[in-house]
Amino acid sequence: MPSPSPSPSSSPPPSPAGSRPLRADARRSIAAILDAGIHVLAVRPDASMADIAAAAGVGRVTVYAHFSSRADLLRAVVARAITEGDVVLAQVDLSGDPRAALERLILASWEQIARIGAVAAAAAGVLEAEEVRRLHAAPAARVEALLARGRELGVFREDLPAAWLVSVLHQLMQGAAVEVAAGRLEAAQAAPAISASVLAVWTCAR
Amino acid sequence: MPSPSPSPSSSPPPSPAGSRPLRADARRSIAAILDAGIHVLAVRPDASMADIAAAAGVGRVTVYAHFSSRADLLRAVVARAITEGDVVLAQVDLSGDPRAALERLILASWEQIARIGAVAAAAAGVLEAEEVRRLHAAPAARVEALLARGRELGVFREDLPAAWLVSVLHQLMQGAAVEVAAGRLEAAQAAPAISASVLAVWTCAR
Repeated sequence: MPSPSPSPSSSPPPSPAGSRPLRADARRSIAAILDAGIHVLAVRPDASMADIAAAAGVGRVTVYAHFSSRADLLRAVVARAITEGDVVLAQVDLSGDPRAALERLILASWEQIARIGAVAAAAAGVLEAEEVRRLHAAPAARVEALLARGRELGVFREDLPAAWLVSVLHQLMQGAAVEVAAGRLEAAQAAPAISASVLAVWTCAR
Repeated sequence: MPSPSPSPSSSPPPSPAGSRPLRADARRSIAAILDAGIHVLAVRPDASMADIAAAAGVGRVTVYAHFSSRADLLRAVVARAITEGDVVLAQVDLSGDPRAALERLILASWEQIARIGAVAAAAAGVLEAEEVRRLHAAPAARVEALLARGRELGVFREDLPAAWLVSVLHQLMQGAAVEVAAGRLEAAQAAPAISASVLAVWTCAR
């Protein structure tokens, strides 16, 4: 028998004194701003807060009520894109030959970066390296597990620290986004270039 | 016979009307601030403008007269460090086996990064990727020439774009600075890790 109580989204609980949970309309505004932010910044990485407000169908004041600066908004847009991308990456088949699995993971990861286009390159410029790294904790854990499995099977090198090998993948992925955004690397060449480079680093010990 | 005319540094030419060349004392202040900036930021990357002023023996007002913000000062410190480093890198012997030459160049480059310590990692966070890249135009030209020579000799791969291979070296060098600053990579492991990784990418075509 269905519960007679209303769903939380249609009827948020009243704010307890001293705390300020977001009201449903505030949550909807934030979601609309972040969705618009991803789409607008993907094509125009220099879009202003006003451009994003217009695309989200809200006023500039509403955007500033939730995000105190453009960097704040960019941070939230990137965090949301990474969370969404992580749901897709969790579906990638990482079984079988670890080298082939690494290539599948890199291709799927690059598709997520390409989906958000220039936002990734803009984030590389505006957000601190440590912040970008923190946001990638979940995808990084997947890469670490694949590296460990490939090492057990003897296909990935053991003579460099695991943390370094994982960071190489992260660095080359971010670096490729910067190179593509700057027009120095063709978008279609990015995934093969990252794949060939990371595979070389992970497998070619002298 | 020595020239009787005074050296330019002891007697700067008078300012022509309409232009504003820096006076000798202003040039000395800037040099002192940048020198202090490199030394202080190398150990304490979060040092304030006031900390750097104190180390330079000038007032805060003097620092702000030349650098409008901390990012501005950091930019100038990094630019000066790269220019100084480039003088050292120009002395590296790049003849002989291109792989050994690449290793010598990477080791010398890493020594320059290690010399300025955490400044490199701080710069990676504060300066835009394109800005960092522009500052490295001279060192990058040296890497491009070495890659081209190694390709002619058949030791460096041809199946990935040259611009990508050069950017891989740049990315891994910057990435290692971030990893060392964050305590995830031991400083002593950095140059061998960068060397082994770049050599793998440049030489291990499948």
